[in-house]
Amino acid sequence: MFGVYVTMAREFHVAVAGATGAVGTQMVQCLEERNFPVKTLRPLASERSLGKSVTYRGQEIPVQVMDEKSFEGIDIALFSAGGGISLKYGPIAAAAGAVVVDNSSAFRMEPDIPLVVPEVNPQDIALYKNRGIIANPNCSTIQMVVVLKPIHDAARIKRVVVSTYQAVSGTGQKAVTELADQVRALLSGADPKISVYPYRIAFNVFPHIDVFLENGYTKEEMKMVLETKKIMGDDTIRVSATTARVPVFYGHSEAVNIETEKKITPEEVRALLAQAPGVKVVDDPANRLYPMPLDAAGQDLTLVGRIREDASIANGIDLWIVADNIRKGAATNAVQIAEILAAQYL
Amino acid sequence: MFGVYVTMAREFHVAVAGATGAVGTQMVQCLEERNFPVKTLRPLASERSLGKSVTYRGQEIPVQVMDEKSFEGIDIALFSAGGGISLKYGPIAAAAGAVVVDNSSAFRMEPDIPLVVPEVNPQDIALYKNRGIIANPNCSTIQMVVVLKPIHDAARIKRVVVSTYQAVSGTGQKAVTELADQVRALLSGADPKISVYPYRIAFNVFPHIDVFLENGYTKEEMKMVLETKKIMGDDTIRVSATTARVPVFYGHSEAVNIETEKKITPEEVRALLAQAPGVKVVDDPANRLYPMPLDAAGQDLTLVGRIREDASIANGIDLWIVADNIRKGAATNAVQIAEILAAQYL
Repeated sequence: MFGVYVTMAREFHVAVAGATGAVGTQMVQCLEERNFPVKTLRPLASERSLGKSVTYRGQEIPVQVMDEKSFEGIDIALFSAGGGISLKYGPIAAAAGAVVVDNSSAFRMEPDIPLVVPEVNPQDIALYKNRGIIANPNCSTIQMVVVLKPIHDAARIKRVVVSTYQAVSGTGQKAVTELADQVRALLSGADPKISVYPYRIAFNVFPHIDVFLENGYTKEEMKMVLETKKIMGDDTIRVSATTARVPVFYGHSEAVNIETEKKITPEEVRALLAQAPGVKVVDDPANRLYPMPLDAAGQDLTLVGRIREDASIANGIDLWIVADNIRKGAATNAVQIAEILAAQYL
Repeated sequence: MFGVYVTMAREFHVAVAGATGAVGTQMVQCLEERNFPVKTLRPLASERSLGKSVTYRGQEIPVQVMDEKSFEGIDIALFSAGGGISLKYGPIAAAAGAVVVDNSSAFRMEPDIPLVVPEVNPQDIALYKNRGIIANPNCSTIQMVVVLKPIHDAARIKRVVVSTYQAVSGTGQKAVTELADQVRALLSGADPKISVYPYRIAFNVFPHIDVFLENGYTKEEMKMVLETKKIMGDDTIRVSATTARVPVFYGHSEAVNIETEKKITPEEVRALLAQAPGVKVVDDPANRLYPMPLDAAGQDLTLVGRIREDASIANGIDLWIVADNIRKGAATNAVQIAEILAAQYL
């Protein structure tokens, strides 16, 4: 007998906490773009966003003010509302039965909470069962590890020296507005207003992202050091990071110097990365092709280029990595985690 | 018998070749600011600049079109008109009896031509006698070596990994105009014009300065590798560089990772650099003090901060260096060389 088998794929009740922020807005858009099996979408935010709505599949969905009941009936809760909100409401959402994918740094280094980049350590998603929470890594770390992983598997990375060129959108929508306003003011001879950052970012650079720690590094720099080890599942990888803010709206760039245990040539790195999931090799200097924020913004791939042999050490590789910090660096990575949860675990 | 001894200090006939460019204009300004003993000033440029003049000590001095007679009677000729002009007119000026201080890259790596940063290797100025030419180093290299030198003397630098954040003024005045025009266009919803660089620089970053070489590095990156060894007088110092252009008008920033032979602490580095000529330590993160282009522009010191111990290797130091690329990175350094020439050699 012939039959048509229709898979009744499960659909999910999804909450987005911090739905009106730069990353939250992108999370909602990613759910739609990637055709995530959403049964209902519940956008949550603070009282400040009361009266706002988010657009999802052509519908305007009013934002609800987050409270202790917000997560009842929710299967998956994507959080991007800051560490304080995650610390308070993450466990509440988990207790209500949701799996939390949290974009803040609140839980990232907790030993029993997985920190996941789907291209690197998808197997760690299973550990969501420990506390009902999966941490989404820092934007600068995500784009670096998707490139490092295939190299590490092939040649074992001993040490990484990374310098970042980070876009203002990493700070939030208010920083995007501030950069545009400052540039406008300066070009018309007016004094630029400074409120989000301690200094003017327009036509300036500062080596200061997140707070300074006792050891002289910023928290952003130490995220790159510590999260890299955890995601790669290898505590022996040593990282030194300098993170700097540049007057770019979207797209973080990174100059990455790698020392490997085994010799690996630029050609081998290029071939490996050409096969790597989520990575696009843009590396044809003769034709002026290299990654730039201009090209990385608005899409989900991590671009890598300027792959060359660093002759200053025996086994050295230099490369240049750029990705959209709001998409792959935050929202897309979280939705990718949710996709694996939905397909394999829930 | 009492006497009043008046030193009849010698004054010099000075030519500035490329006097209407970004660096040439600053050279004239530096001669004035630093009270260089100028007897006559002869601004030279190409035919394109005919009819223009430069302002020196309140006087408008008409620009002369450079030709083979331009250097007759000149004692010191500061060149910043591009490598082609230097190659052609540098030897002519030297043959006419002038000492040439050349800001192009044309002669920098010639073994018998000194490459000088006065704070680092003033003794090499004596080698001007070889060919009558002294080379002024690349902007990114100058600001790095003034900081590296005291550290090298104290602890021997084995390896440097540097990433740069370079201002558009390094390309010339036309790039300064292009960045401003592009920003204006973008903020008013128009298409930005692209002519100086291969891509838009407004709100963008690209890892492409000067031309690409066979080894995958740019010429700018290899300048940092090779010039550093020559200026420091130590071929064993290994350097790996990534040079990138950022949307900043004036002031190059550099993230520098150093490996030394001898252990040196951040406190020791800070103390050394506090005594170093031409260097200003700006390193108080708790009070949000670190070097920025905003502060470096318009003055002559090289600012250094974010000095910290890199725990990823046994003897590692990370730091952040910013200087005005047109001043210390070009014009001021050339005038400083001229000052030593004038005081000690001519």
